[in-house]
This record gives sequence, structure tokens and C-alpha cells, in this order.
Amino acid sequence: MKKSLGAKTILYPTPVLIVGTYDSEGRPNVMAVAWGGICCSKPPCVAISVRKATYTYGNLLERKAFTVSIPSEEHVVAADFFGLASGRDVDKFAAAGLTPIRSELVDAPYVAEFPLVLECRVVQVAELGLHVHFVGEILDVKADEECLDADGRPTAEGVKPFWWAPSENQYYGLGPALGRGFSLGKDLKSRST
Amino acid sequence: MKKSLGAKTILYPTPVLIVGTYDSEGRPNVMAVAWGGICCSKPPCVAISVRKATYTYGNLLERKAFTVSIPSEEHVVAADFFGLASGRDVDKFAAAGLTPIRSELVDAPYVAEFPLVLECRVVQVAELGLHVHFVGEILDVKADEECLDADGRPTAEGVKPFWWAPSENQYYGLGPALGRGFSLGKDLKSRST
Repeated sequence: MKKSLGAKTILYPTPVLIVGTYDSEGRPNVMAVAWGGICCSKPPCVAISVRKATYTYGNLLERKAFTVSIPSEEHVVAADFFGLASGRDVDKFAAAGLTPIRSELVDAPYVAEFPLVLECRVVQVAELGLHVHFVGEILDVKADEECLDADGRPTAEGVKPFWWAPSENQYYGLGPALGRGFSLGKDLKSRST
Repeated sequence: MKKSLGAKTILYPTPVLIVGTYDSEGRPNVMAVAWGGICCSKPPCVAISVRKATYTYGNLLERKAFTVSIPSEEHVVAADFFGLASGRDVDKFAAAGLTPIRSELVDAPYVAEFPLVLECRVVQVAELGLHVHFVGEILDVKADEECLDADGRPTAEGVKPFWWAPSENQYYGLGPALGRGFSLGKDLKSRST
């Protein structure tokens, strides 16, 4: 028998997406977004939800572009700071000692020191309530060479991502590999069909 | 210098959301969705993206309701199977030895054995390309008592969630706690503002 907890935003895992934008004066900003994720395979798209009160919201509307930088475990303090401070008040890149790089594909900056980056142009905007939902088409993914395996694909062991648990407000690091997708369940499929 | 990997759906982490629906004859079905996540705080909403070719797609359009069951590490084989087989061909609950429970709030079933469940009604549908994006308002979250801490909140240690890495097609389990959100970055904020 399950216990009812009410209408809440509880899910495991939620990502830590560092969303990079330029403001109206061309100053780079970043914020931490946990409400988001991949939302389409073709064209490849990622969705992020931001409140209208954020500095990023105006930047997204104006520039129609953003990046998503995925931080490594070693950057958990900077990532948390990106969710605490506002770009209205502080240059978050400078405060965290991190480097904004101008994307060559979209009108937005990414974090040089973070291992994986998605460069996106805004293709849909939907009002949901407190949050506005932006869908970005992913024009390119860029990664540090050290994160890539022999086939040139990023690996979790290389990126060392972490995620956030909204229920208990806690970050969690990378756990053990449990097996391959579209593979572990094959026996069950062949027995049942 | 980062290496360009092209326009791809690479992100860390992506969740393993087990989406429950009823078909036109009232048969319960589940599928595994990695393209999704929380998308609004008020009202609390979760987004899932599904291809039109899936059995779930028709069910979502007809019933305007779904559940999201979060599996524990021990259910990784069943969860993978849910992403391999189609409800057109097989009763996935029966094949996996799992129990469908009818939600009392929405017209959809959830997985009894999975520790955390979101009950949702469809409030927005958007065509993105290969995937169609469904936003569900979360009407209730239900959890097994064993997953709750002393304050009645689910914990990752209790749920033992896992996630999927699309780049290398690998499931990963729960890693170490790294610190609290909206807390780790406080020093950086107070020094910079």
C-alpha cells in the first residue's frame, strides 16, 4: 500500500543543466535548471523550464538561443551557486572562476571547463504555469576529448555527471554501471513474444 | 578545445520513466521513456515524449492520462524489457511478473512493485518531430513507506533509482551523496554579491 504525498514535483533523477545565455548587453550568464531533458530524437531537441522571474527568461526570449553545459562532480559547488545567484546581480562566470566561450553556432555562451555542451536554438515556447517551457533544437554536442571512449562517444565515467533529488534536496554522483539498454530485457522479450 | 560530435541526443542523466496507460479495451500497458522530466512547479507537471508508432501514444490521446512509475535498481531488467516490447504484442505486466494497479485519480495503471508513482492527466500535447511531447499535471505522488525518511519524504537511498546514459547505452545506479542543493554554493554567493 503506497502512501499519498500530494501533488509534488518528485522524480528520480532530475538533471543539473547549466543553461548559458547572453543578456541584452551581450554579457554571458548561466543558471542551473533541473526541470528539463531530451524531448525529441529527430530533430534532436532538449527542453528546459524556467520561471519568468529569472534573468535567463528574458535572455531566451531575446536571443532565441541557449547552451546546456553538463558539469562534472568537481563542479558541484559552482553548479549550485549558479542556481542560487542571479545574473542581474553578479557575473556568475567570474564569481565561479569559470570561462564563457561564445558558441559558433548559436547566440549563447557555454562553460569551457564543463566536459559536455549542447548548443541549441529555441524552436518552441509554451507557458505551463510558474514555469515556461523552452524546446531547443540541438545543433551540436561538444565534449572534452578526455570524456570520449575509443569510438569517440562520451562516457559517464569520463563526464562524471551528477544529478539532483528534489525530494530531499540532495546531489548524487555517478553510481555503478548496471548493464546495457535494449539488452538486459531481451530474454524476457523472447520468452514472452 | 572541445570536439564536435554532431547534432545528437546526448545528456547526463536521462531518467527511466515507466509510463502506464490503458488501451482502448482497458488493458494496462507500460513503456520505458527516457525523454522526459519535471517541467513545471505550479501546477506540478511532468513531460514525457513518445513516438507516434508506440502503443502508448494512442492510449495517451484516448485516455488523456498516464502514470509514471519509478523503478528501483532491482527492476532494471523489467524496465529494459518495457522499452523493448510493444503492448500490441504482449501483456508486459504479466510477462514481467508485475502488478497493474488502477489509479483512483486518473484513468491509468501504475506498477505496484515500483516504489514511487506519479499520477497525471494530460494538459498539453506538442508535436516536435519524431517524438510527441505530452505534459501531464501531477495530481498525486505515491510512495512505498519503506522509501520515506522520518519527515515522510522519499529518499534516493530508499527508492534506489537508476538512470540511462544514451551516449553509451548504459544504465547507472545510485552514487554517493555530494551535498545539499541551494547550500553548497552559498559561500560563493555571499562572496560575490
